Parts: sequence; structure tokens; C-alpha cells
Amino acid sequence: MLEKTTRMNYLYDFYQSLLTPKQRSYMSLYYLDDYSLGEIAEQYDVSRQAVYDNIKRTEAMLEEYEEKLLLFQKFQERSKLISKMKELVKEDHSSNCDLLDLIAELEKLD
Amino acid sequence: MLEKTTRMNYLYDFYQSLLTPKQRSYMSLYYLDDYSLGEIAEQYDVSRQAVYDNIKRTEAMLEEYEEKLLLFQKFQERSKLISKMKELVKEDHSSNCDLLDLIAELEKLD
Repeated sequence: MLEKTTRMNYLYDFYQSLLTPKQRSYMSLYYLDDYSLGEIAEQYDVSRQAVYDNIKRTEAMLEEYEEKLLLFQKFQERSKLISKMKELVKEDHSSNCDLLDLIAELEKLD
Repeated sequence: MLEKTTRMNYLYDFYQSLLTPKQRSYMSLYYLDDYSLGEIAEQYDVSRQAVYDNIKRTEAMLEEYEEKLLLFQKFQERSKLISKMKELVKEDHSSNCDLLDLIAELEKLD
């Protein structure tokens, strides 16, 4: 469950600009501010079921966007490469070739 | 006009997965294969105007996606940073600090 929350937080971060204002409100209350479905329902004066359906639909949309655009996946790959580059530079007993290899991999991600 | 074509090629590259199959076909014939509106109309047995309207709408959609997700803009910024990093590594009279600064900038882009 925690893993799903983390994933949803990331997907929301990458794709929130493609959601409607209402979808954004529900998702941000539920995933970022940890409101319960009941609390969101009360605040918006709608049924708990309506909030639940909206959030489920939005989650599916976010997964669909990720399937198509892979922004989260590429972000993770890029982060790994960047960490390795930092280590190489800080350790300083790297060859420039290693670093150039990493930079080339980074380039391929775009 | 050439600049617009280049931009559209890039935007199409980044966001084509969000288009319908028909939008993808028209855009790819028009922008990648350099077909005329008339030739596309003939091939799909529709009016030239219908092809024109579809392509104009798709162009507007691509610009809207770019406004929201900035994938092309970030790609350009990342490319610049990557080029600078390559130069630094190849010249080899760089300090590690310069390289770390560039890596940090790269990180901020995500």
C-alpha cells in the first residue's frame, strides 16, 4: 500500500497538468494530504462513492499516461545515471571514459 | 516555415502516443514524409479540407501538451547541459566542481 502511494504521488507529480481541477483536488487531498474518502466527500458535499470512483478513474488515467509517455520510468533511470556520475566525479579515480559512457546513456534516454 | 516543421517534428516525436491512429497517420505523412494535403486526402478518400482541419487540430493539441508537460523544452535544456558536460570531460582541464554543478542542474530538470 505504501508502495502504491509513493507511485501515485510520483505519477501525480508528472501528469497533474493533464488532469481536471476536480481530479487534481481529490488526488491531492487523498494522496498528498492523507485525507480519508469520507473527509473529502464531506468537504465537497458529494457521496463517498463518488469520490472513490473519481479517484479510481484518475489513478487509471495516470497509469495510462505513464504507459504512453514513461516519464516516471525515465526519471528513475536518469536518477540512477546521475547518482553514478556524481560518485565517479567525487571519487575522482575514474577514467573519463566511464563518465563519457554514462553521459552517452543519459543522452539516449531522451 | 522550416522552423515550424522542425518544431512539429519534435512535438510529434514526444507526444505521438497521446494521439489517435488517424491523427498519427496524417501527421506522419504530412510532416515526416512530406506529403501534400491533396495527396493525403486522395489516399484516405476524404476532402482536402478535412485533412487540413485534422492536422491543424492536432498541431494545436501538440502545442497544448507541450505547454502542460514541457517535454521538448526540457529535452533542449538537457541536451545543452549534456553537451557542456561532454566538452568538459573531453577537454580534461576541468575541475570536478564544474562537472558537479552541471550534474546538479541536470537533476533539477526532472
